[in-house]
Amino acid sequence: MITVLAGGVGAARFLAGLVGVVDHGEITAVVNTGDDTVLHGLEVCPDLDTVTYTLAGAIDPERGWGLRGETWRALEALGRFTPHRPAHSTAGGTWFGLGDADLATHLYRTARRAEGATLTEVTAEITRAFDLGLTIVPMTDDRVSTRVTVVDPGTTAPVEVGFQEYFVGRRHGVPVTRVRFAGCVIARPSPTVLSALGGADVVVIAPSNPLVSIGPIRSIPAYEQLLQQRREQVVAISPIVGGAALKGPADRMLTELGHEASVVGVARLYAPVCATLVIDRVDEHLADAVRALGLRCVVTDTIMSSPDAASALARVTLVAGGGKGPWAA
Amino acid sequence: MITVLAGGVGAARFLAGLVGVVDHGEITAVVNTGDDTVLHGLEVCPDLDTVTYTLAGAIDPERGWGLRGETWRALEALGRFTPHRPAHSTAGGTWFGLGDADLATHLYRTARRAEGATLTEVTAEITRAFDLGLTIVPMTDDRVSTRVTVVDPGTTAPVEVGFQEYFVGRRHGVPVTRVRFAGCVIARPSPTVLSALGGADVVVIAPSNPLVSIGPIRSIPAYEQLLQQRREQVVAISPIVGGAALKGPADRMLTELGHEASVVGVARLYAPVCATLVIDRVDEHLADAVRALGLRCVVTDTIMSSPDAASALARVTLVAGGGKGPWAA
Repeated sequence: MITVLAGGVGAARFLAGLVGVVDHGEITAVVNTGDDTVLHGLEVCPDLDTVTYTLAGAIDPERGWGLRGETWRALEALGRFTPHRPAHSTAGGTWFGLGDADLATHLYRTARRAEGATLTEVTAEITRAFDLGLTIVPMTDDRVSTRVTVVDPGTTAPVEVGFQEYFVGRRHGVPVTRVRFAGCVIARPSPTVLSALGGADVVVIAPSNPLVSIGPIRSIPAYEQLLQQRREQVVAISPIVGGAALKGPADRMLTELGHEASVVGVARLYAPVCATLVIDRVDEHLADAVRALGLRCVVTDTIMSSPDAASALARVTLVAGGGKGPWAA
Repeated sequence: MITVLAGGVGAARFLAGLVGVVDHGEITAVVNTGDDTVLHGLEVCPDLDTVTYTLAGAIDPERGWGLRGETWRALEALGRFTPHRPAHSTAGGTWFGLGDADLATHLYRTARRAEGATLTEVTAEITRAFDLGLTIVPMTDDRVSTRVTVVDPGTTAPVEVGFQEYFVGRRHGVPVTRVRFAGCVIARPSPTVLSALGGADVVVIAPSNPLVSIGPIRSIPAYEQLLQQRREQVVAISPIVGGAALKGPADRMLTELGHEASVVGVARLYAPVCATLVIDRVDEHLADAVRALGLRCVVTDTIMSSPDAASALARVTLVAGGGKGPWAA
């Protein structure tokens, strides 16, 4: 059994490679829900949907999020109302791209949640609706919200906003001074996640943002403790390559929050829970610095330019994590 | 000031005629919300939207509901999930036609309601967004739900369902044995409605279903009492013409619930609150029977085949109601 801790785009690409290497039934993806938000009354789970849409081959390849061939009628029509809301209102906002077909996922999720279904249950139903054989599970059924303190460009005062307001609303273009995961201590660990972490032959930390994609998962004490116990079986792939993030603000955010935007910085963050770090060939000169932090370091091609490249990376990662299977050959 | 008690399609057509006769600023439409429902977590107000879309010239002319040039991507995509919901679930239902652009109205309304706005406030914002000059007001900001007892075709047992499940879900094709308005006694009367009813020169009961469009408004005791007090200024237009409803199940429903499906049956229902009934020329032979019930009876063309025909009907109705204005000439 393979368990993958997943954020959005990078994790989705890795999983798309992994399913070419390991039977779907052997894979559990534990997905970050710290980015989840309620928009127009609908429950929106960006990372869960990015993983699902990507594995279904339905993701828009250019945007990297949302559905291929999407239309935007609802969002366009919503813009009619925006000028008529009161000054204090945020209703009718069109800054978050919800396509017409994508809306259906949120409508279904919202309706099922209102019926009392857990996010784990709804996610399983959505996964089946997209005909995916692997297990996709939210990190918890409780609410853990990634909150980001940014410097307000107008007043230069610090202001705490929800993750999507930082990431999409402000296009992650403002400096971050703090990240916290509201609700993480009281959130109940998911039994599915606990057994996926406890029972996996290899736990892979996908090449996702260590702070705001993997951070929320680790913020739940029971998971962090379990990862520490299983450290020997945990292998991470660095999302930082040549000092930069392939996608998103991970590099800037690492620097802004006092970490090093390099594979060494990543290794330092993951050292408590992870015995092996997979880094890209361009960072080979830093392998010894990673090893000096007490991690094994495996050097390979980590750029997932195709599903085949992602599968090759998955194979190396599983072997690096000590996994034993036909793919190890 | 003219106040119109309104259901959906018939009332919307009458109002579209009325705005050609009376200044927009003089008109308040008090709209039935007994049909309102929550679908996929979204607050849907069919009559309010039919009135708004019709007056905005945005209604689909063939369907008579929803927006012109509508697309159905979200609803189609929702169908993917329906087979994967549990047996007890109603999530992912596609029986209620929510178009993509129409969804925006419900998204905005839901978001504003979640912010604490009253339905009256949101409705005013939506009305302005559609650039309408008249006042459109929900009958109450509280929840009054029209519940319909129908005969289950399978078991022949009576079963109570929400109005939309009867009207749309079962295409109003099953016999009705009872109608009630859940919440009507505890619903707080809307101050806007009270002053619109109390201060109007003429109160028009639009040609809507007396039982399930006007019935919910009358079910709120303060309104019924006020209408009784203002009976002389209240004029109704019969939605029954030649013993049949022009649209919808009003004729069958009247018969099923023990009323007469004729202008006489309508007169009997409205007699306590209404001094004048406007009926169509085809029912002229029943005018004396209406008068025998203590109502004035005005005979005219009531079929609103065009906005001009609706304006002519509006003019006759206002005069019949004792209204005085330039349109009376």
